[in-house]
Amino acid sequence: MRVAYQGEPGAYSEAAALAFDPGAEAVACRSFEDVFRAVSDGGAARGILPMENTIGGSIHRNYDLLVEHELPIVGEVQLHVDHCLLALPGVRLEDVRVVHSHPQALAQCERWLRGLPNVELSAVYDTAGGAKLIRDQGLKDHAAVASIRAAHVFGLDVLSRGIQDFDTNITRFFVIARQAMSEGADKTTIVFALPSQPGSLFRALSVFALRNIDLTKLESRPIRGRAWEYMFYADLAVSRDDVNCGRALVNLAEFAKWVRTLGTYRASREVLSPSGTPEPRTKEATP
Amino acid sequence: MRVAYQGEPGAYSEAAALAFDPGAEAVACRSFEDVFRAVSDGGAARGILPMENTIGGSIHRNYDLLVEHELPIVGEVQLHVDHCLLALPGVRLEDVRVVHSHPQALAQCERWLRGLPNVELSAVYDTAGGAKLIRDQGLKDHAAVASIRAAHVFGLDVLSRGIQDFDTNITRFFVIARQAMSEGADKTTIVFALPSQPGSLFRALSVFALRNIDLTKLESRPIRGRAWEYMFYADLAVSRDDVNCGRALVNLAEFAKWVRTLGTYRASREVLSPSGTPEPRTKEATP
Repeated sequence: MRVAYQGEPGAYSEAAALAFDPGAEAVACRSFEDVFRAVSDGGAARGILPMENTIGGSIHRNYDLLVEHELPIVGEVQLHVDHCLLALPGVRLEDVRVVHSHPQALAQCERWLRGLPNVELSAVYDTAGGAKLIRDQGLKDHAAVASIRAAHVFGLDVLSRGIQDFDTNITRFFVIARQAMSEGADKTTIVFALPSQPGSLFRALSVFALRNIDLTKLESRPIRGRAWEYMFYADLAVSRDDVNCGRALVNLAEFAKWVRTLGTYRASREVLSPSGTPEPRTKEATP
Repeated sequence: MRVAYQGEPGAYSEAAALAFDPGAEAVACRSFEDVFRAVSDGGAARGILPMENTIGGSIHRNYDLLVEHELPIVGEVQLHVDHCLLALPGVRLEDVRVVHSHPQALAQCERWLRGLPNVELSAVYDTAGGAKLIRDQGLKDHAAVASIRAAHVFGLDVLSRGIQDFDTNITRFFVIARQAMSEGADKTTIVFALPSQPGSLFRALSVFALRNIDLTKLESRPIRGRAWEYMFYADLAVSRDDVNCGRALVNLAEFAKWVRTLGTYRASREVLSPSGTPEPRTKEATP
């Protein structure tokens, strides 16, 4: 089973793919678009996408891509994020002058990083990419914020572990596939747009409240290229196959400009940990 | 009147500060935290913060900072974003190998940038910062995505103008100050947290719907460090001093864990354009 993810080997997305299915072959992709392409083209059976983090919030780009494409959500993964400061062997914390990482990871470790005097922060496209840069270019006074797996993959030392500002740092991922798989589903993700009228969101939510369907997430998102018109992402704690859910969505369609079901799937029951295994079954995707 | 903004001279935030108050002296700050600090300490009378963009969505970091600090919102600015590709004089489009900009700006020009073959994208902390980097280091095969003002400030040529993927690219800014100014206010921004119970958001929205108070924005945001507990940002099309608004907020407090008013202010009536003036009244803040 090939699972496409965005980033370098050692990225949290790769860890999530392997935590969800330990037998999977994780396929590295350059961008989130490439993950969608790999699944559409059949280069991978599934794709894994970070959607939301307890500290940083939603990754809107991926919600937008779910709307643009027709690939259903078939699963959900929750992964503990445990940031480490990594550097070349022999480098000491006091030698570090530049710290590379994804802007989200830098933001999550902000308070800890402020404690390092005279350190410059550098934004890179993924956490493991910063670790790779240090290894590839032999940067001696640089460090990266990344997972412990990235340390193993790129042969770096761990200068400090658990450097995030909040203990509860969890990322939620969606698993996408070409075909829906609703067996055992108990959660449904939908997206809908409402007319700009007073009370329209209130009416929209009534279709769930009146049927005792719990919303576990609701998020508004501007519709691209239209000033201050919003669509809404919602997670419902019910299967799409449930008759109540079906009725609620028919009812919602009366008020909404449009409604789409992005997928129905089994909700994740536990928060997984990224494995620290030195040699994952990972290979680079052909571009 | 000194107005603190984040970024280098030529940043969109600086343009917003000057568009809101053409007589203002714009004070450059390294980070959004420094903007809050400048206003708290009296180094600036006001601060300006980008909050939301029609393409990229909300800038959650600034909502978080509004909640962490006690500085009220006193105004709102809407600014057209018109991205240009800038390079050193004499550089041609086909020479460009690296494009620097803020990740949000790179995302907004994604389709256009994909049309440039063999170009690497580099993320920097603000758009004008990329322009400054090219000027300071004399980078001949590099370009930056930034405003036309940044071209003037850093003496760069405009290789292409209006390169964003969507015409409607507007950023909304909040103006903050030490003291609230509710005179002429017709819009109120609040933040509230709800218990994790089915129907709790429906009940919360009822307090506005039943009083015909229009919500112009509603956005959920995870509470930092608590897994999947959300708070909500809402904009109400009413002054906080309106008796109906006061009653709605008292009513909301019955259902919510907590409610806070971030500010009441006069809604912006028009979308302003960044000025292309070569010599703005701008100086660097002393750190």
